[in-house]
This record gives sequence, C-alpha cells and structure tokens, in this order.
Amino acid sequence: MTAFDRLMAWSRETQALAQVAGRLGWDQETMMPRGAAGQRAEEMGAMEAVLHARRTDSKVGEWLAEAEAPDTAGHAQLRLIRRDYERAIKVPGDLAAALARLTSRAQGVWAQARATDDMALFAPVLSEVVELKRQEAVALADGTGRSLYDALLDDYEPGASAAQIQEMFSQMRPRLVALREHALAGPQPPALTGDFDEVAQMALSRELAERFGYDLGRGRIDKAVHPFSSGSGDDVRITTRTVANDPFNCLYSTIHEVGHACYEQAIDQAYHLTPVGQGVSMGVHESQSRIYENQLGRSRAFCGFLYQQMRDRFGDLGVDGPDTFYAAVNRVHRGFIRTEADEVQYNLHIMLRFDLERALMAGDLQVQDLEAAWNDRFAADFGYAVDRPANGVLQYVHWSVGLFGYFPTYALGNLYAGCLHTALRRDLPDLDDALAQGDPGPATGWLADKVQRHGGLFAPQEVITRACDGQAPDAEPLLSYLENKFGALYAG
Amino acid sequence: MTAFDRLMAWSRETQALAQVAGRLGWDQETMMPRGAAGQRAEEMGAMEAVLHARRTDSKVGEWLAEAEAPDTAGHAQLRLIRRDYERAIKVPGDLAAALARLTSRAQGVWAQARATDDMALFAPVLSEVVELKRQEAVALADGTGRSLYDALLDDYEPGASAAQIQEMFSQMRPRLVALREHALAGPQPPALTGDFDEVAQMALSRELAERFGYDLGRGRIDKAVHPFSSGSGDDVRITTRTVANDPFNCLYSTIHEVGHACYEQAIDQAYHLTPVGQGVSMGVHESQSRIYENQLGRSRAFCGFLYQQMRDRFGDLGVDGPDTFYAAVNRVHRGFIRTEADEVQYNLHIMLRFDLERALMAGDLQVQDLEAAWNDRFAADFGYAVDRPANGVLQYVHWSVGLFGYFPTYALGNLYAGCLHTALRRDLPDLDDALAQGDPGPATGWLADKVQRHGGLFAPQEVITRACDGQAPDAEPLLSYLENKFGALYAG
Repeated sequence: MTAFDRLMAWSRETQALAQVAGRLGWDQETMMPRGAAGQRAEEMGAMEAVLHARRTDSKVGEWLAEAEAPDTAGHAQLRLIRRDYERAIKVPGDLAAALARLTSRAQGVWAQARATDDMALFAPVLSEVVELKRQEAVALADGTGRSLYDALLDDYEPGASAAQIQEMFSQMRPRLVALREHALAGPQPPALTGDFDEVAQMALSRELAERFGYDLGRGRIDKAVHPFSSGSGDDVRITTRTVANDPFNCLYSTIHEVGHACYEQAIDQAYHLTPVGQGVSMGVHESQSRIYENQLGRSRAFCGFLYQQMRDRFGDLGVDGPDTFYAAVNRVHRGFIRTEADEVQYNLHIMLRFDLERALMAGDLQVQDLEAAWNDRFAADFGYAVDRPANGVLQYVHWSVGLFGYFPTYALGNLYAGCLHTALRRDLPDLDDALAQGDPGPATGWLADKVQRHGGLFAPQEVITRACDGQAPDAEPLLSYLENKFGALYAG
Repeated sequence: MTAFDRLMAWSRETQALAQVAGRLGWDQETMMPRGAAGQRAEEMGAMEAVLHARRTDSKVGEWLAEAEAPDTAGHAQLRLIRRDYERAIKVPGDLAAALARLTSRAQGVWAQARATDDMALFAPVLSEVVELKRQEAVALADGTGRSLYDALLDDYEPGASAAQIQEMFSQMRPRLVALREHALAGPQPPALTGDFDEVAQMALSRELAERFGYDLGRGRIDKAVHPFSSGSGDDVRITTRTVANDPFNCLYSTIHEVGHACYEQAIDQAYHLTPVGQGVSMGVHESQSRIYENQLGRSRAFCGFLYQQMRDRFGDLGVDGPDTFYAAVNRVHRGFIRTEADEVQYNLHIMLRFDLERALMAGDLQVQDLEAAWNDRFAADFGYAVDRPANGVLQYVHWSVGLFGYFPTYALGNLYAGCLHTALRRDLPDLDDALAQGDPGPATGWLADKVQRHGGLFAPQEVITRACDGQAPDAEPLLSYLENKFGALYAG
C-alpha cells in the first residue's frame, strides 16, 4: 500500500467512527430514555477519546509527508486531511479534553438557566468556556497571522474572515433595516388560523420532504425539540417539530432540514466515508437549507401549491386565497428568536451575535456584561426590548458548547443562497411552472449538479463561484431578491 | 494511579464503547433506513476494530500482572477482565478479522437462503464459518485441555461443559418425551380467536412490561422482526413484534425480553460500565427471561389477570373462561420453530441443535449433510417431517454468525429457572395472590435481590446455587414443575 492508500484507509475508518458518534447524538435527541443521560455522556466521551487519538496520531503526519495524490479528488482529500490533522495537533490534548468536559457540563447549565431565565446561573461556566476557547484560538492562530476569532471561524467556514464578513454586513445592514421598517410601517398580512392536527402536520411534512428530493430509503424523519439534520452518505436523518397552532413551524423546519440532508445524500457515492464526502462548510450547508426553505419553499409559486394542500388537509385556514396565504407565509413580524425570524430580519439577528462574540473573544466584552450588551443592542437594532433572558442572551445553545465563530456561517449561507438562486433562475426560466405544481425538482436537480454532488472537492467560495458562472459570492443578489420580494409583498 | 485503577479506567471506557456498538445493533433492527446497510457494515467494522485493538492491548496484560484487587468486587472485576483478555489474545488478529467479515457476509446469505428455502445457497458459506470457528476453537482450547466445543461453549456459559449438558439432557429427555406424548394424545385445548388490534397489543405489552418491573425511564420498547433486549445499565432497550391473529406472540415476547432487560437494569449501580455490571452468562440471562415469561407469566394465577385484561381490550376471545384461557396459553402444539415452542417441547428443540453442532465442530458431520441430518433427527424426535428448510435447518440466524455452543445456554436457562422458581415459591407462599392481581412484584423483587443485582460478581452456577439456599443447579425442579403443570392441564 502507498502512503496515500494508507491515509485513505485510516480516513475511511475514522469517518465511519465519526458517523457512529454522530448517530449517538441523533439518538440522544430522539430515542434515548431520559434516565440514560449520565451513561450517554460517558459513551460520547469514550467515542471522542477514540476519535481524538486517531486524529492526532503521528502516523498521519508521516503518511501526509509521503503521500502523493493520484488525481484531482485525491488532491482534495489530502488537502482536507492535512487541514484537519494540522488543526488537531495544534490543540494540546489536555485542552481538548478539558473543553469537551467543560462544554458538556456547560450545556446542562445553559439548559437549566434558560428554563429558569437565570443568566447569573450560566455566566460563571460561560466565562470558563470563553477562557478555554480563547486558549484554543491562541493555539490555532499560532503561526498563521490570524486573529483569534478568525482562527475559530476558519473551522466552520474555511477561507472566511471576520473582516470579509464585517464588510458583507455593512453592505446588508442599511438595506435590511430600511426593508424592515418599510414592512412594519404598513398594513400587516393576517396570520393563519385553524385546527392543525399534529399527525396531519407530520404527514404533510413527509410528503413535502419527498417532493424536495429527500430519499427516505436512506433517511428518516422524527420529532425532536430542535430540528436538525444528522449523518452523511447513506444514513442522513432529519428531525422536525410540531406546534399545534403554527403548522409553518413544522413544514418549513422540515424543508430546511431536507435542504441539509439532500446535500449530504447527493454527494457523489465515490466519496462516501471520505473527507470529500461531506458538505464542504457550514455556510454552503446553510445555503442549501435556506434556498430550499426560502427561495423555493416560500416562493409565490410553491405557496400556491401548499395553500391547496393545506386546505385539503386542514380545511379553512383563515386566509382568503393563495395570495393572502403567501403573504401570511412571509409575514415580517416582531420577535426575539433567530430561528423563527422572517427572511428580512434573520440576518440582523446574526449581526448582533457576530459583534458580541467577537468582542468576547477579543476580551473587549466580559461575560458579566454580556446580558446588558445583548439587551442594549437588541433594543437598538429591533426597536423593542428583550422581555426575558430565554428570549435574549440565553436563547440558543451555541456558546455553551463552544461554538464561537459559527453564527456568521448562517448569514453566509443566506448570501450564498441569494447568489445560487439568481443563477438557477437564469438557467431555469420555467421554474415557477414546476413549483406551482409542487415540484421543486428542476431547482433541486440544478443544486445537486452544481453544488451538492461535489461535496468537499472545491473550497466553499469556489463551489459557489463555479455554480454561478464564475461570479464570486456577493450580498447584492440576496438583497435584490429580498427587496423585490418584500417590496411587492408590502406594496401597501 | 495503581495498576488496578488504570485497568478499571480502561475497562470503563471499553464498556462504554461496547455499549455504543450494541446500540448500533439495536438501531439496525429498529430505526435504520434500509439503504444504509452497506454503510452500517463499515461503521460496525470500524467499531469492532477499535474494540479488538483495546481488548488485545498488551498494556492490559501488564496491568493485570501488577493489579491488586481492593475488595471482593475488585477480585471479580479482575477475574472477568483476565478471562476476556486471555481469550482475546489467544485468537490471532487475522482470524478474528476474517471471522467478522465472513459472518457479516454469511448472515446476509442466510437471510436470502431462508427467504427462498435454499440450503444449497447457504451451505458453502456455512462450511467456511464452521472451518473458521474450528480454527478459533483450536486457538481457544490450546493449553486448557478442553474440547473444541467446550472452548466455544465457555464463551457463553463460563464453567459449563458439553459432558455436563449431555448428562442434563439425558435426564430430561425421556420425561419430556413422555410428557409431550401424554399431552398430544388427549383432547386439545382451544386456540384463541378474535380480533387483536396491533396497536392495542402494543399498548397492553407496555403495561405488562411495567407490571413486570421494566423501568421505561431507562429503556424503551420498539417493534422489530425478532424480539431482543439490548444494552446495560441505564439504557436497556427491548423489542417485540405483533402478529395479527396471535396476540400471545407479542405479549409473551415482551415479557421474555423484559426478563432480560430487568436483569440488566437491576444490577447494582456501582457496577455500571464495568465487567461485573452485566448479566453473568447467557444461561443466567435466559433463566430470568424464561422465569418471567413462563413460571410467572404463564402461571394460572397471572393468566386469570391477563384473561380479564384481554377481554376488556379485545372483547370475545373464543374461550369460555380463565381456565380455558390458561389452557390456551399453555397449549402443547405441533410446530417447527424453537422460539414458538411450548414449555414441554422447547428443550427438545435445543437437544437437536446441540447434538448437530457438536458433530459439526468435531468434524463428524459435514455441512453438506446437515439438512438431511436435521430432517432425520426432527422426524425422530417430533414424529413428523420438516415441511421446508425455513422451518428446519434454516430457521435461525445463530450458525451463520458463528454462534456455536450458544444453543445449550437456552436449555441451561430453563433449568436454572426451574431451580429459582422452586426456591422463590418456598420463600413467597402467597405469590399467587399477587400474580392474580397482575402483580409479579414479589417474585421479580426476589429475583432482583437474589440474582440480578449481583451482575457478574459470582460465577453463573454459583449465583444460582446461592439463590437456591446452597442447592446446586439440577434438572429435577424444572421437570417436576413441568410434570405438575402439564399433568394437570392435560389430565383428560
């Protein structure tokens, strides 16, 4: 065996073990008995220890020094393996283990703090997380010339930088604010009313999932508190949730997760269980989930189809036709929670998190001042006050588990989705005819071909650029799309 | 850290990983998408490789040489770790890997052969399995003076031998045959008739599981093709199945698996994720499942309660009262399948398999002659011919996955259950009053205290002997119980 072959065999086994660890996470959120939490933490810890030992094994370094890629895909494999290995050996083993233990504990404290609206309970452990993440960032940044924040960001979105994201946000911010103020100033579209049986919500979810191309022969749908997608290759599972009086929560959560899952399922079979055989970055992943959910799922054409489906299943919806239904689906509304935000305000939520977490990492903001900083910024950005910590600084799990530098990938995903949508509409002038029939196939097929099947073959920005006829990612397409769509919806 | 502490830390992590591998197996039978089978084989292979490397790590040998147990439980831990380690290093790594690959393939071939009733399809791969298992047995027997068969048997039932089992079967055989002939000669009790909604079957299953003490806060019940119990400690899951016109299949499969699961759940929390923290042998495990299912679940007292429960849920059952219902539950009937056999004939099925698999291992029987040998022996033992291979030699998965020496542990389980039942009836003279109220609690509590909580603290026969006031395991209690029960049921 050549060094390259040894490396690929090692990588394949490591990927298989990572899939197992990922499925444990899925199980924990869907199937695990409540009383098994303590034991599960030990099981996850044991899996992480195995994975960490493999990822930092010095043999990998030796193979990498010798390995020669046989082809283009091989070059991409080596690039990704080298990247992960160099990252893994930069972080001292003691620090990695301490972070794993700490974030596992912090997640529990966060959940309790959120349930009781008690930021004082969460602050001490979050301070510890920030301190260890800073230590990790110092180790990762060493020798790269990167800032601490960029060193963390690079983990989720290779090649991205805070400066670039800052510039993108500067471009987006005034136009999104203007659009929001315009929308909230005029008359508001109705909300849906009616009786939305939760079993029927799940049945419709399942049908929509299949329409968007999710292969249930290699996946499954369950309910969980937070919707997510999990796994690669031939075992990609999603979860969704139901809320009795809000069927869109279930339906659009499903379509969103189906976007993630279809990306994983569409990757070239030849890459399965290799580094190239996974979505290339969080940003590109989010671009797929967001374009499925928003540009396709919340389009006027698809809403016409969905309106009829929901009428057939739920009877009267409290809206007087497909146009009003479309307006209800896309209602710009006040709210505190990012995941429930409309397309206009979503990125404003991200900007807030991005600025606060950069300040935490830079040492310019202390955890003890975080709640006040969040509340001040929220009032300034959204025009009303946070009513309780669970709707503010405590609303999401990310920071408790050490995800600093992750939030901007959501905004990047939206930006990429805007670019891809412009390109695919150019290639598919009759797309609305298909969407109106409930068939997103032309668009999902286009995405599978241009983006999804490549997995990690190209760098994140490169795969988007290639899909968009050489046009580099930029905020303009997203902003134009939003202004057109919401300008028309809120024409007064 | 002392060598003992290091060993226990290593063991704890290994146990946690083994739990993860076990849960993958559970997932495969309950939740896994069909299309994920190929990927799952790689995931399982990767987990097995990790576990094998840990189990044969020379550090374990070094620690074992140095370790001193601090107490009685520590001695038991060391004994079990030493036993597993010595076994693991005896089998050459190449052979272990070849067996894992071969049995994974053989299981698929078996399933196909069973579906098409084609023993010729299965025979070649089974010959390979027999050959590799013989090689494994040679490695395991080396230096022990044991026969090849005993070397394999010891893996499932430490301390048992073919000679001892042969003697037990010689004692049982004539009395079981006589009992069967008596039962089949006279008038036969009715079978149940009625409409048994499968959702209602599952609901009743769940209620019975809780009545028998299964803690659903640390477990769950799903449907699977073959009922099984899986996991240790705080995450012990069972499966059952439903058959539209045969509710007993579901209900008694559930009670059986609950017996296995309660054993694991009742083990002293201090032993969780250690070698002592699991059922001590297949035979003792089966004693718990069988006593829950048969001596308790199929008792006249409990049948009176179950009759009323089923009447309330399913309406008319086609039997004229609790006595007839009890007779229907315990009907001695013709059949080909071990898992569906009544208490009288069950052990006759095991004897057939025991003799055939010993002959295969000894080289006295070739796989090409196995089907004919099975059919001849079945006709001789049961008095009628096997109608098709799926009801004969192809009926169960065991041999395809290399389980030689496993079948007798089912019979040992029955024998132990007979001993335990005699002892617990002596201690609990009013047990029938509780069972008649649907409360097996006094009996399951007795078993938890005398047997289950100890896990692997004592050797298999020792834990039974201790529970039975110093009386060593023997077939007489089981035979007397069966003769009394079925003598009365078939009094004519």
